[in-house]
Parts: sequence; C-alpha cells; structure tokens
Amino acid sequence: MSTWELLEKVRKEKPLVHHITNWVTIYDCANIVKSFGASPVMAHAKEEVADMASIASSLVLNIGTLTSELIESMKLAACAANKKGIPVILDVCGAGATPFRDSKVREILKSAKVNIIKGNASEIARVAGMGVKTKGVDSGSVDADLSVMASELAAEKSCTVVITGKEDIISDSSRVYRVSNGADMMGAIVGTGCMAASVIGAFAAVEKDLARASASALVCFGIAAEIASGISMGTGSFKNDLFDCVYNLNREQVETREKLA
Amino acid sequence: MSTWELLEKVRKEKPLVHHITNWVTIYDCANIVKSFGASPVMAHAKEEVADMASIASSLVLNIGTLTSELIESMKLAACAANKKGIPVILDVCGAGATPFRDSKVREILKSAKVNIIKGNASEIARVAGMGVKTKGVDSGSVDADLSVMASELAAEKSCTVVITGKEDIISDSSRVYRVSNGADMMGAIVGTGCMAASVIGAFAAVEKDLARASASALVCFGIAAEIASGISMGTGSFKNDLFDCVYNLNREQVETREKLA
Amino acid sequence: MSTWELLEKVRKEKPLVHHITNWVTIYDCANIVKSFGASPVMAHAKEEVADMASIASSLVLNIGTLTSELIESMKLAACAANKKGIPVILDVCGAGATPFRDSKVREILKSAKVNIIKGNASEIARVAGMGVKTKGVDSGSVDADLSVMASELAAEKSCTVVITGKEDIISDSSRVYRVSNGADMMGAIVGTGCMAASVIGAFAAVEKDLARASASALVCFGIAAEIASGISMGTGSFKNDLFDCVYNLNREQVETREKLA
Repeated sequence: MSTWELLEKVRKEKPLVHHITNWVTIYDCANIVKSFGASPVMAHAKEEVADMASIASSLVLNIGTLTSELIESMKLAACAANKKGIPVILDVCGAGATPFRDSKVREILKSAKVNIIKGNASEIARVAGMGVKTKGVDSGSVDADLSVMASELAAEKSCTVVITGKEDIISDSSRVYRVSNGADMMGAIVGTGCMAASVIGAFAAVEKDLARASASALVCFGIAAEIASGISMGTGSFKNDLFDCVYNLNREQVETREKLA
Repeated sequence: MSTWELLEKVRKEKPLVHHITNWVTIYDCANIVKSFGASPVMAHAKEEVADMASIASSLVLNIGTLTSELIESMKLAACAANKKGIPVILDVCGAGATPFRDSKVREILKSAKVNIIKGNASEIARVAGMGVKTKGVDSGSVDADLSVMASELAAEKSCTVVITGKEDIISDSSRVYRVSNGADMMGAIVGTGCMAASVIGAFAAVEKDLARASASALVCFGIAAEIASGISMGTGSFKNDLFDCVYNLNREQVETREKLA
Repeated sequence: MSTWELLEKVRKEKPLVHHITNWVTIYDCANIVKSFGASPVMAHAKEEVADMASIASSLVLNIGTLTSELIESMKLAACAANKKGIPVILDVCGAGATPFRDSKVREILKSAKVNIIKGNASEIARVAGMGVKTKGVDSGSVDADLSVMASELAAEKSCTVVITGKEDIISDSSRVYRVSNGADMMGAIVGTGCMAASVIGAFAAVEKDLARASASALVCFGIAAEIASGISMGTGSFKNDLFDCVYNLNREQVETREKLA
C-alpha cells in the first residue's frame, strides 16, 4: 500500500493507540495521534494496562519520564499486546543519559517482544551496545553507519529499528528505508521525537509490514512539518501549524512531496 | 440567573477549582478554567488534598489516567469537599474500557457524595449499570433514551448527571436540560470532554442549582467552540481559538447563540 | 555581561536544564526553555535524578503538584547538583496553600543548598515565615516591603530570592534588581510563573552571578510577553505568541525595551 493509502486507512479505521508515555509530551502524543484521525488512549495503572493494551490496535511505550513502577506497567502491557499480536513500539527516549534508563530499556526488551525500537542516533547506538553518551534528550550525532547499526540491531532483536534524524533510517534487517521529509523546525521544539513514535504507532496499527508502516508514518509527519515550517512564525505557532497540517494532509501533498528511498 | 449572568459571576468571583485529574489533559483543564476567569489548582498528594479541597469552591475529579493511589486521594478530597458543602464533579472518563475503571468509579461513588457525574453516553451507561463497552475514551453511542438514563441515574444517586455529546443532556431527576451548542471540531481534538467537566466545575462553584450551572457551563463552552470552529484551520488552531473565544466571550454572543431547552 | 549577551550565551551554549516539576505546566516549562535555545530534560525517578542532575547545567525544582516521593527525588537531585556546583532553582509554587507544602519546602531547604528561591509575593512571604495564606497558586499580594523581604530571606538562606509580580524583585542580599518588563496577559494564562523559573534556570546555567542571571532572564521573558501581548487575541494565542516572541527575540528588542533597575 502507498503512503497515502495507509494514511487513509488510519483515518478510516481510527485505531486505538494505547500509550504509556512521559508526562512532558503526553499532551503532544495524544494530540498528534488524534490529528492523524486515530484514537489515543493513555493508561498506566498496573491494574488495567493489560486490559487496555488488549483492546488497542497498537501500544506505544516511551521512557522519557520513567519510574520503576511505570516500567512494570509497560512490561505488563507489552506482554498483553504480545499475546494478542498487537504491535509494540518502544521510544528509547533519553537512553544513554543515565544507567537507570539503559538498564530499564534492557529489562523491557527482555520481558516482552518489542516490534519497533525507535530513537535518535545516539539513543539507538546505546541500545545497540555502543559506547555513546546521551546528553539529555536532544543530542543525536553518532560516528557510525546508521543503516548498518539499524539493520544489525533489527536482526539481533528480530524487530524493526527506526532512527530519527535529518534523514530517518528504518530497517527490519531485510530492507532499509530512508525518509528525507522533515524540517529543521522539528528540532527547535519539544516533542517531535515522541510524536514520531506515536504516529508510527497509528500506522503500525493498520499495516502489518512494520518497516513500511514506520516509513510512511515518518513521511506523512515530515511532510506536515515541511508545510507547517513554511507558514509558522516560531516555536509556538509551528506546533499548532503542525497539528493543522497533519489534520489537513491531502493526497496531492503526500504524493508530490514524499521522499522515501 | 441567566447563562450570561453566571458567566459574569465566574469572572468576577474567580472561584478556585481544585482538580485531581489526568496527565493528558491536565494542561487543557487548567487553561480552560483560567480562560473562563476562574482559578484552577491541581494537587493530588494524599497529604494535602483534603486541605486543598477545603479552600476550593469546587472539586473536579477525572479518572482518565487513574491509579489506585490517585483514587485514594480523590476519595479524601471528595470527603473533605462534602464536609464543607463544596460541589464535587466526577468525570468518569473511559468508564467501561477496563474492569479497573468501573470498580474505581463504584468505589468513589460509595466513599463520598458526588454532586455531578459527567461522561459521554457510553460512559454514563456503564455507570448506570448498562452492559456497554467503551473503546478507549472516544466512543459514545448508546442504544438508549439518554434523558431517561440521565434522570434515572440522577434519581438513584441523588445527583446531577451530565451526558455530553452532539446534544448535551443534563438532569437532576426533576428537570432535564438539553444543550445544542457546540461544534463538530470538538470531537476532532483531545481534551474537550475533560475541559467540559472543568468548566462545569467553574460554574458549579458559583451557582447552587447544579443542573442549571452545568447547562450554562456547556452553553458557554459550546458557543465558544462554535465561534472558534468558524475561524480555525485545523486541530492545532482550533484549540487555541477555543481558548481565545472563551476568554473573549461577550454578552451578545451568549444571548443570541444560546441553545438551551 | 548585558542581558542581550546572556541571551546569546544561552542560545550558543544550549545548557541542559534538568527539571523536577509539576504535571500541569511541565509542557510549558519544557517548551519555554527550548524556545530560549536551551535544552530541557525532565526526569524524576529517584534512581536517576542524581545522575541526571550531575550532567545538567542547572536544576529547576517546582512543587506545584508535589508528592512525598517527588520531594525525595528533588532532595537527591539537589544534593547531586550541590556537589557539582550546579545552580539549584526552587519555585515554591503554591507555598502557603496547605501545611504539607510549607513543610516540604522547609525539608528541601534543610536537605540541600538552594541557590535561587522563586515565588510570588505571598509564596515568598510564607517561606520567609510571615503569616500569609495563599489561595491556590494565583494570588500574590502581601502587605510588606518586598525588597526588604527578598533581601532578608536572601541573607538568611545565603541565596538569591526572586519575587515575581507586576514588578519583579530580585535580591542576593547585597543588591536588589527590579524588573518592570512584562504584560498583564501573563496573569491571564496558566504557567507564566512556572515558566519564569525555568527561564531563570536557563540563564543561571550560563552566568555565575545568579541575581544578574535571574534579572536578565525575567527581562527577556517579560519583553517577549510585551510583544506577544500586542499581537495576541486571547489566552490561547497569547501563549503561542509568547513562545514565538521568545524564539525570535532580537538585540534591538532587548536593548530598547529592557526595564531593569
């Protein structure tokens, strides 16, 4: 299916995307999923996460403001999703910043099957066991061939790996997609990384080929950002314009602007 | 008092509206209450919720991202509000989605007096004991006469019941109000349901007739949404325009657009 | 260094500002820090706060939605920051509203060195031991000479004290700065107080003279608010315009509008 067809499918099926995410961008994640026409739900109590994940069409985990309790809920939700065959997306937000984050990412990956691991270059390098250091959640440059890193990690974990950046790299070990859509303003605001994982969650809910779903998600998100970037006046208006542009994204925009290789 | 007079009263008295709410729309709830001229305060520590509720003019509870601990804080706050005669509003956000939510709603309703129960049709049906299933927080259609359902639940719980939807139904068992203000865009963004409960909280703080307060709150919120809907470009700008339109709501807009039966 | 030079330094060095803050305005705090060109990170797990604070350039604590657990994390982070000589900013948000808040503020101040204490007049009066009562987080008038109150508390705690209001008062006991920049709209929206502390965190990360850093931070924030206030249509657009104006703040705006005495 084409990127446009996948976007139409998201809008038509309105899949429920269950999030256990961070308290900074939880608002952005809900709004972007809703702007794409899907239905976000956030729930993190250990008593209900398995039930909620079971009725969802995808599960998005984000460790941005993790606690030990939240990680336990993530494991329960991921195991429930695994049983139902619901795709699990893990945003390794801030991996490498503290030993606690690294150890909790390993715990999640051991406890359940994660279908898509998503991060920027330095975060993914950390998960892949490379000796990089993340400063907060904003850095990302890594001295490595990112497509090789993505493919090797994808092969090792039998999953899809998404590295976001100026060029997004997506690999499920057999294929590598490269998405060049996007805008510099995405790096000037808070939340684009987290929102990208949520958008991937919406697309993964309607397309079994998770590398393809991820690539199409990032194409749509990137195109909306390009259009928003052309009209916004700064960091405040850019985020609003981004939601508007996602909501209004049309066939012509997607088909003429798509930069997917 | 007329809807306009109630709105003026909110703006003049600036009541303190204590929230124990969810982490997704906590930001929206605070901003909408503030845009209406009231004063939001969010506090959920078990050690202080009774004290905070006691100095507030209304208490808004929302189970959107409930945990067992948060529910305990809600009970403590509600009991403190009860003692002071401060109205308690419960948004049964996501009721029916998981057994945990249903059981916690029952716990709250047993532990303290809730003065206004608010939800969409499927959530209220669930609280009323009907066998519906909520998918996330966005669904709402129920095969039942909503005004009968609202009145019966209101009578059973000796409270006011608010069912939000294309037409909002409000009943305190003796009367039924119907509010037809609002805009389709309200369903396209995250947070309108939660904000509606917060707005009801602001109006319930200044008017003892809680059904009337709820109806007027939804009229004002709906009118602002209608005006915002006419100027917004999508999901991002709609929410901002909504805050602007609430902030600027004037007598002529309220009196000529009110659709309250 | 001039205010403009300090702003340029923030934008160039992009300091990491670690927050342990509240769930209402966490989104605003992250976005304002990012709009100023610095790099916000939010992390509150007791297992990682010391590590995160240690790699940051400043630490901003805000008790808006405090819990006992969160306060423990704040103490751990503050002690780690102390060891590294990283400035610690404490926003005593809502101090005076409940005994719990007052006691937790005292606990933090005993457990670690706080370099900048920030609040509105009634909050600071409470911390200074004066018998005022805060209603929620919005009030602020106090019957006292604010510059004396700031200087005395600064001397007692060997720190910088910032009292925000129509005129901001900053004192490190040896000097008093007064900032008259700002706009009435700042009081009409949620989050300006919390954002002010975050902005102070960004400037304190690049300037050792913390009173001067705080004053320059509030000048820049206030000027951006003035410009935003001139173009915004209400509470929704004002916040967006504020982020845009912060992002676009230029030398001429800062130098011609600065009201610092």
